[in-house]
Amino acid sequence: MIIIMKPQAAKENVDAVVRAITSKGLQAHLSQGDQVTIVGVVGDKTRLMHDNLELIPGVDKILSVTETYKLANKKFHPQDSTIHVGDTPIGPGQLTLMAGPCAIENEEMMMQTAMAVKAAGAAFLRGGAYKPRTSPYAFQGLEEEGLRYIRRAGDAAGLKVICEVTSLKALETAVRYVDMLQIGARNMQNFELLKEVGRSRIPVMLKRGLSATIDEWLNAAEYIISEGNPDVVLCERGIRTYEKATRNTLDLSAVPVIRSKSHLPVIVDPSHAAGVRGYIAPLAKASVAAGADGLMIEVHPCPSCALSDGPQSLTFEQFETLCRELKPYADLAQRTF
Amino acid sequence: MIIIMKPQAAKENVDAVVRAITSKGLQAHLSQGDQVTIVGVVGDKTRLMHDNLELIPGVDKILSVTETYKLANKKFHPQDSTIHVGDTPIGPGQLTLMAGPCAIENEEMMMQTAMAVKAAGAAFLRGGAYKPRTSPYAFQGLEEEGLRYIRRAGDAAGLKVICEVTSLKALETAVRYVDMLQIGARNMQNFELLKEVGRSRIPVMLKRGLSATIDEWLNAAEYIISEGNPDVVLCERGIRTYEKATRNTLDLSAVPVIRSKSHLPVIVDPSHAAGVRGYIAPLAKASVAAGADGLMIEVHPCPSCALSDGPQSLTFEQFETLCRELKPYADLAQRTF
Amino acid sequence: MIIIMKPQAAKENVDAVVRAITSKGLQAHLSQGDQVTIVGVVGDKTRLMHDNLELIPGVDKILSVTETYKLANKKFHPQDSTIHVGDTPIGPGQLTLMAGPCAIENEEMMMQTAMAVKAAGAAFLRGGAYKPRTSPYAFQGLEEEGLRYIRRAGDAAGLKVICEVTSLKALETAVRYVDMLQIGARNMQNFELLKEVGRSRIPVMLKRGLSATIDEWLNAAEYIISEGNPDVVLCERGIRTYEKATRNTLDLSAVPVIRSKSHLPVIVDPSHAAGVRGYIAPLAKASVAAGADGLMIEVHPCPSCALSDGPQSLTFEQFETLCRELKPYADLAQRTF
Amino acid sequence: MIIIMKPQAAKENVDAVVRAITSKGLQAHLSQGDQVTIVGVVGDKTRLMHDNLELIPGVDKILSVTETYKLANKKFHPQDSTIHVGDTPIGPGQLTLMAGPCAIENEEMMMQTAMAVKAAGAAFLRGGAYKPRTSPYAFQGLEEEGLRYIRRAGDAAGLKVICEVTSLKALETAVRYVDMLQIGARNMQNFELLKEVGRSRIPVMLKRGLSATIDEWLNAAEYIISEGNPDVVLCERGIRTYEKATRNTLDLSAVPVIRSKSHLPVIVDPSHAAGVRGYIAPLAKASVAAGADGLMIEVHPCPSCALSDGPQSLTFEQFETLCRELKPYADLAQRTF
Repeated sequence: MIIIMKPQAAKENVDAVVRAITSKGLQAHLSQGDQVTIVGVVGDKTRLMHDNLELIPGVDKILSVTETYKLANKKFHPQDSTIHVGDTPIGPGQLTLMAGPCAIENEEMMMQTAMAVKAAGAAFLRGGAYKPRTSPYAFQGLEEEGLRYIRRAGDAAGLKVICEVTSLKALETAVRYVDMLQIGARNMQNFELLKEVGRSRIPVMLKRGLSATIDEWLNAAEYIISEGNPDVVLCERGIRTYEKATRNTLDLSAVPVIRSKSHLPVIVDPSHAAGVRGYIAPLAKASVAAGADGLMIEVHPCPSCALSDGPQSLTFEQFETLCRELKPYADLAQRTF
Repeated sequence: MIIIMKPQAAKENVDAVVRAITSKGLQAHLSQGDQVTIVGVVGDKTRLMHDNLELIPGVDKILSVTETYKLANKKFHPQDSTIHVGDTPIGPGQLTLMAGPCAIENEEMMMQTAMAVKAAGAAFLRGGAYKPRTSPYAFQGLEEEGLRYIRRAGDAAGLKVICEVTSLKALETAVRYVDMLQIGARNMQNFELLKEVGRSRIPVMLKRGLSATIDEWLNAAEYIISEGNPDVVLCERGIRTYEKATRNTLDLSAVPVIRSKSHLPVIVDPSHAAGVRGYIAPLAKASVAAGADGLMIEVHPCPSCALSDGPQSLTFEQFETLCRELKPYADLAQRTF
Repeated sequence: MIIIMKPQAAKENVDAVVRAITSKGLQAHLSQGDQVTIVGVVGDKTRLMHDNLELIPGVDKILSVTETYKLANKKFHPQDSTIHVGDTPIGPGQLTLMAGPCAIENEEMMMQTAMAVKAAGAAFLRGGAYKPRTSPYAFQGLEEEGLRYIRRAGDAAGLKVICEVTSLKALETAVRYVDMLQIGARNMQNFELLKEVGRSRIPVMLKRGLSATIDEWLNAAEYIISEGNPDVVLCERGIRTYEKATRNTLDLSAVPVIRSKSHLPVIVDPSHAAGVRGYIAPLAKASVAAGADGLMIEVHPCPSCALSDGPQSLTFEQFETLCRELKPYADLAQRTF
Repeated sequence: MIIIMKPQAAKENVDAVVRAITSKGLQAHLSQGDQVTIVGVVGDKTRLMHDNLELIPGVDKILSVTETYKLANKKFHPQDSTIHVGDTPIGPGQLTLMAGPCAIENEEMMMQTAMAVKAAGAAFLRGGAYKPRTSPYAFQGLEEEGLRYIRRAGDAAGLKVICEVTSLKALETAVRYVDMLQIGARNMQNFELLKEVGRSRIPVMLKRGLSATIDEWLNAAEYIISEGNPDVVLCERGIRTYEKATRNTLDLSAVPVIRSKSHLPVIVDPSHAAGVRGYIAPLAKASVAAGADGLMIEVHPCPSCALSDGPQSLTFEQFETLCRELKPYADLAQRTF
């Protein structure tokens, strides 16, 4: 932590800052510049957490030097992690494909989808049983009934099953059905839910919040890990910007950024990012080329009859074509699926 | 709802769209342009909700004509609403001041703050018992103990009490203590929580999400109202933009925009928006001038010892000065506090 | 300037950084933390401008302590400036109203507008002779002919005249007609134009770029001042964000931020920010309450026949009403117009 | 064009809209909904450009159906264009690599760079002779001297030469030296410059503005093409968002979006987007996978001594490695370099 004093700060202001630091058993290093004085803090900064040094007269600003997340931080865990969902690994060497409809609509469509995406190369079946929708009047999901359908379909096809949980109640039910939990963008900072997921010990995919910084995202992962669940996979799904040509702006740079800041696997969801079916294939290939550990893709037996997100869903045939086209990209990235 | 066809759309594409519409008992109005054909839909559009017309070949885009929120919509409720929190009204003619610390730290500081802000003109005591914090290692709030403190302080000073709830569990406890619930920015689309708050029938202040559009915000209000709780007050608290000179960018235009789109009262929180104490007074005055129904301001007996958000908190004296300076602005806006 | 080393930086990395600094005759102050080493630089940092310290192995990041703008900086010019446009001051104590149509359409409408806005209290007549338009097929302005019209109208009504210049050629012509130049949002970083305006010695209003940070904006002002023209007035006109309910998002916090960082006057243009006529009056009042030194408002004799930006223009009557309503806000802010 | 009336619009309001339309020789198609009335306009909409239909009482909003750009629009030019810079094509089947330093510093470094990037596979040598810099005190470029250096270096190595022009004066000089002009992000809406470049008939690369929508970007291209210069290549270089982990947010979705909306080639500049050297290789591969027609990469003989943008420049060796790694991605995309 570094405290930068204002040019006109008096000596007693600097002294007050130094006293605040040393009174907590920390060391203060002064750097007297020609325009400003800078005070460096050495020692366990959490002891200063409740002191508002910014408010000491003469203080201009305070700069943080180290990240607040530790368990998710590559600095303290330099080797990239592999997360195991049962016997299915996610991480280096793998290109994990998760596919399925936005919303679970009935058992039959889940069965059909499971068979189709398995045949094409997917390892996970996705599908929403609890749908967070902007309008209260939109379809909200089949809840436990949906979980039963996806479980059966996953088992029948030999796929792992991943579902979003949107509340503690949904979590309580979902843990009995799914192999992997998903925290959606809208709940990335639903801290109660993160903590409870952390206690659940079931692997979890944490989607990036709609306007979350990468730093906040890794802190959200830290909530889960610090409660005892180290099996966190991150998922970039687009951020909100001024550009409206796509539903969200896929921030593909997040892949190499996460790779440099964290040891956790990171996968990409181009379907929600683009919101337009025709953009999914190029963005999926780009994600693999950028180093993603996997992809989450919306697939629906009949996109034009989907209850949710039809326009961004692929048909079985389109998904199969995509998987075939992805193969050489996976090879180049030394990944298999 | 309007469907715009692509220039090269064939007649059978247009026919397919028309069929999709009429098959639900709705009417389709064709408008044959020189470049494109446009199809207008007349009737109850919710019947089309599960049809993905975008996917019919030849469709270019679909435009929505009417808002999805109804109960929060001024079009269907032209008169501005007054929300009653016990005997305290929020709405036209009022400038409701809510003040207090970011986090409840102990009983004494709540008592002191309550007395000070009441004397200055506040009607509500605020204070966080459940604190959503970016890092799991930051102070998370006193929970029920904090609620007891704020209740006692509010009662002693004759102030209404407002607290944020961050989960169903917190809600269950909070309803026994507070006069008004607060949904924070991070939970604006925590739909489970919104629905439960809607069932609680306790007045609620709904903060705008960090990157929520005004349309999404009003849809979130709709979640609460549609569950039976009409007593919703909106609170603008800054949105996330590229500009980092302030913690968030206060979107003061939201006040007249809400006024034109909804009948619900809207108050402004300049403390969280600015994040810097020196900007609060000018922004508070600006909020009143823009037509806000109230203000939420962070006040702390000793900002430099606050456990949270000290740099943006006002001292008692600063708050008193602000209230004095706000009076003539309230007069101009024909509001009292 | 502060250099933060990576946790794993070797002693020779730190030594290399120190050498790079001392080799330019500057001093390096080491602060050995428990996790990281920090190197503070003391002396004239511009000597390091061409050294890319970031690339020395072991360097994590480099933080700048002081702003790059000097002449626009309040730290070196603590008293708020008053800019004089002829005998008309802009700055403390004044509320300078600039009004007129978006585009100059003909002489008659300029005459009518000049008389109307003068009567209502404006000090400046605005009007675009060179219009930067998104589409090449939209109306681009009357150019020199327009300048003649606005000059005559300004003279007839006793108003100062302000016009946007969009190129060096436009500047060359405009200096013969106008009292004040305007640099529009799209040209805020058209550095050639800024420099030439700096050499012109005519007072200039510099609008904030569509997505310019306040820091970049002040650096743009520095371009003008450093060429010899100190008479710069800043104009906040809304920034681009994800929110589309208004044309741009008026960043009213910019007013107190500028006030704390610069001595230059700052005025607000609510017309371009809001893009909707009904939001202009509340935002104009809010701007005055936030401390703005003036307002730029679009006024048109017949908004529904305007060639540009009609929907956001006020009629004469609406402008007169607004001015009357602004008076008490100006009084409260101890400003006159 | 579609005009949506307010629910409470009276019949005479609708009649007024219809009259405004028919008075220009256009047709109005009424669609009477249960809640609102919609008026479709058929015919040449430019005739309505000067009518502000929004201001007719009862009008709620006006929606545009067709894009304002025509010459850059794929709808009217369905086949993807190949732009020829001398004998060097940019477009389908090509992966055009442009490489070189951010700023031209001296002749020797340009010679060295030209030889190195040519050997690695580049077709163009880039280098800034006119540098738009945020601060007036930063290095601004060697101007004509720099153009001489890059021309000689390009000729010596057998590379085409591309340079940014930032003003009409720079353009006048540059046309005598370069094979391709570059319009930088800050000048994307410097319409005077765009028009003059349009008259120059030299191929031009148009970078996307810092916060430009894709629609505005294509309209900027339209400015150039409509003046007679059809040889426009677009360049995505990152947009400004709230996320600060990278210098800008690379909007890679822009590649498929442009592909669907325009026939112009689009290349990607990952160097300026990322601002961090380590992220360039993954983003370059991702760009090719997403369908880009080329890449612009910063390369410097000694990044740690670069006068500008050193931290994001590759060394010769790193560039050579990147080109070798890009080859199989180019093969997959059926492109050669």
